[in-house]
Amino acid sequence: MKRNGLRIGGLVALAAMLTAPALAETGTSLPQDISETAGRLMAAAASDTVGLKFVEDLTTEIGPRLAGSPAEARARVWAVNELKQLGFQNVRVEDFSIPYWSRTHETAEVVGSNAQPLVITALGGSKATPEGGLEADIVRFDSLSDLQAAPVGSLTGKIAYIDELMYKTQDGTGYGLAVRKRSGCANAAAEKGAVACLIRSVGTQSHRIPHTGIMSRDGALGALPAAALSAPDADQLTRLLERGDVRVKLDIGVQSAEAAPSGNVIGEIEGSDLKDEIVLIGCHLDSWDLGTGAIDDGAGCGIVVGAAKLIDALPGKPRRTIRVVLFGSEEVGLLGGQAYARQHGDELDKHVLAAESDFGAGRIWQFQTRFGEGAKPYGDTIKAMLTKIGVAEGNNEAGGGPDVGPLRRGGVPVVTPSQDGRDYFDYHHTPDDTFDKIDPEEFRQNIAVYAAFSYIAAETGWDFRKAADAESAQGAD
Amino acid sequence: MKRNGLRIGGLVALAAMLTAPALAETGTSLPQDISETAGRLMAAAASDTVGLKFVEDLTTEIGPRLAGSPAEARARVWAVNELKQLGFQNVRVEDFSIPYWSRTHETAEVVGSNAQPLVITALGGSKATPEGGLEADIVRFDSLSDLQAAPVGSLTGKIAYIDELMYKTQDGTGYGLAVRKRSGCANAAAEKGAVACLIRSVGTQSHRIPHTGIMSRDGALGALPAAALSAPDADQLTRLLERGDVRVKLDIGVQSAEAAPSGNVIGEIEGSDLKDEIVLIGCHLDSWDLGTGAIDDGAGCGIVVGAAKLIDALPGKPRRTIRVVLFGSEEVGLLGGQAYARQHGDELDKHVLAAESDFGAGRIWQFQTRFGEGAKPYGDTIKAMLTKIGVAEGNNEAGGGPDVGPLRRGGVPVVTPSQDGRDYFDYHHTPDDTFDKIDPEEFRQNIAVYAAFSYIAAETGWDFRKAADAESAQGAD
Ligand SMILES: [Zn+2]
Ligand SMILES: [Zn+2]
Ligand SMILES: [Zn+2]
Ligand SMILES: [Zn+2]
Repeated sequence: MKRNGLRIGGLVALAAMLTAPALAETGTSLPQDISETAGRLMAAAASDTVGLKFVEDLTTEIGPRLAGSPAEARARVWAVNELKQLGFQNVRVEDFSIPYWSRTHETAEVVGSNAQPLVITALGGSKATPEGGLEADIVRFDSLSDLQAAPVGSLTGKIAYIDELMYKTQDGTGYGLAVRKRSGCANAAAEKGAVACLIRSVGTQSHRIPHTGIMSRDGALGALPAAALSAPDADQLTRLLERGDVRVKLDIGVQSAEAAPSGNVIGEIEGSDLKDEIVLIGCHLDSWDLGTGAIDDGAGCGIVVGAAKLIDALPGKPRRTIRVVLFGSEEVGLLGGQAYARQHGDELDKHVLAAESDFGAGRIWQFQTRFGEGAKPYGDTIKAMLTKIGVAEGNNEAGGGPDVGPLRRGGVPVVTPSQDGRDYFDYHHTPDDTFDKIDPEEFRQNIAVYAAFSYIAAETGWDFRKAADAESAQGAD
Repeated sequence: MKRNGLRIGGLVALAAMLTAPALAETGTSLPQDISETAGRLMAAAASDTVGLKFVEDLTTEIGPRLAGSPAEARARVWAVNELKQLGFQNVRVEDFSIPYWSRTHETAEVVGSNAQPLVITALGGSKATPEGGLEADIVRFDSLSDLQAAPVGSLTGKIAYIDELMYKTQDGTGYGLAVRKRSGCANAAAEKGAVACLIRSVGTQSHRIPHTGIMSRDGALGALPAAALSAPDADQLTRLLERGDVRVKLDIGVQSAEAAPSGNVIGEIEGSDLKDEIVLIGCHLDSWDLGTGAIDDGAGCGIVVGAAKLIDALPGKPRRTIRVVLFGSEEVGLLGGQAYARQHGDELDKHVLAAESDFGAGRIWQFQTRFGEGAKPYGDTIKAMLTKIGVAEGNNEAGGGPDVGPLRRGGVPVVTPSQDGRDYFDYHHTPDDTFDKIDPEEFRQNIAVYAAFSYIAAETGWDFRKAADAESAQGAD
């Protein structure tokens, strides 16, 4: 899957193009020197090695990094060392505690005259089955809604099976819909009297590779044993049900605890005259346990670390501080983001901009902002610059990424550099999320975008919160 | 992966084209009525449902069919019923006994500071590790030859790891080379003092899906515990070795027995005046245990059953008998083919032609023969007919398929309809060998080819053994 498409000629042309003057509108256009520097950053991103090595090393030397596990703890130690060696400042871990869940074993098999194994994986928060497993008949539903509409008690002693499909979209909108069945299956099935629930994997590939992910639960554990079938196994179960009753034996073992250590790893490129103002770019350090967390979200960490290092390599310091946050325990409920917002609640006003990269390493095709009405011209300026490397201008409704949600809700301006996610759910949350799935050239385009907007945000001093009726003075520029 | 590309207009055009007169050369050209009927068979194949349903039902209702296992035994009972219901004659099982091997568990993990699981699968014939597993350092080799060249005793207490790649080819030639490491790793590693061997999976995909297959062994068991890593896990192990020593814990459990029941399932479309002469078309009924044996070799069984049924549906019986053989225990050493040759040793001269379909369900792109010198014009006639549906004319060096090897060596003429195998090793011997990987349209083109040549061979009475110096009388036509 790896490609190396760097062309030196193209690089030089890119640098020339990018340093062309930006919007002429007074006050919201980029000063010539900032525009030129941003252009050079984007050109330099095309030969990034720091970011790519960061994700390669993380996924190789640590591998899977389940939230709250010893592996996530090792990843924090590793990341602190790595950020220090890269020259980041103020490198630290901000600890917090989470409910802990992990699988210990998981098997499923059709029993009876069509006896055969099925490939499953437990959902995050699944209860264990009774010792030795449970055996029950399958009742199939086309969708979560259909299961929810079943009469209470109608599934007593049965296994509910939701066979809902998911389709590929560039922006990942198919995921929100499909993930509802993952989140809601156990609760809905329990309400109807079922003993377990199975779902068709939330994913878009047809390999024998199931997809895990968190489900609704109280603390560490959900209402029932719950697991996802790989797509071919879901097909198989559906074909078997067309032929008659199907009985399945499910055996899931889990470990759980109400409290386990996690933490956010932070490193900074300190600013100069506005160093207490923070441009936060983040990712999450934890991953699911099945793969090595390369596209979710080692890639995001490589992107923000790589981008920050490009800015650090500039001759002068940017005015504001670039804060890189590798959030912990995102996968189990965005817990790192919540902890960060809690621990930094008294300095949210110092956060001038935030974004988290957490959608793989695909090419960024659009750039969204969520700025104050009066700051929209700043957004237009940044977007216009990014169109030069093929990024479309998005709207002003950015989400910012899962772990910066609490910041956004706290009034922090955010941006979303939208990655092409058509292949993301082929790998996401599966054993197949491994380093070879990252395309280095597309990965580096992400670094270009992160480096450019982070640098502009840090160096211009623009106030992205500015309301529509604010006076025309722009930040501290 | 399923497509339904049948176009009725195309079908009619195909039928018209196929019934055009064949080669004019006297005595080796097809009589007009046989040519027309072969054309109609090929057209009818495009709407086959019997063959496709056969493989769907087999892979769904039985699933994996490991040689010598209860599942293979169930598959024989299932196939006997199915062939009888389809109207085959003389349906029977010819029993034989094989050494039995199956896996009971298999895990691998890197231990130490980079602790993480690795996805492996034991090779067929692997020894078990000691109770609780074994732990040893890895020594990597680029190829089997490099391992074989290592000094005796140089791997004492180590795990040998062969990291040899395999490339995609249309005709599967990459497999022969790559499979040598699978076959030879344990013996070579044992000779050097190693305690186990690992190989990069023999396959051409980059998913976290390992590839199993038989290895060299005496009876049921090989020299050492031996397993294949999925491609991403092989990449990972190699990256870890670039960073320093790697220690792996390997835990493989197996069951084995020197004798277990297997068998060949046979059904016939009885001929008319030459009914004791046999056109044998086969496949293998057993599969590896990881997938459901859809492309290897449920598809082959669907193809030959579907083709025979099309011939059976003709108004009159063909002159010779079409014998369909679903061989048992192919995967563990071509044991069904050997048993058949043994059990039918005194009637090999009655076998006028043989072929086994065992390379998936990809489009047939070439048709090879292995006929006597004097019978080559018959081959040319059949090949010329098949060029009309896009099948190139192959040489006269056909292998005929794994289970008909003993027949070929016993002088039976064989043909090889060569399937496009570029994707075959993406799925072959992996959990991913499931029904959804079969393209119905390409599958049906296979049925067209098998129906056409089998019918021509049965109806013409041509002698495919005919030597160069034989008199010019042609068979019994
Ligand atoms: Zn994520
Ligand atoms: Zn995730
Ligand atoms: Zn085969
Ligand atoms: Zn095979």
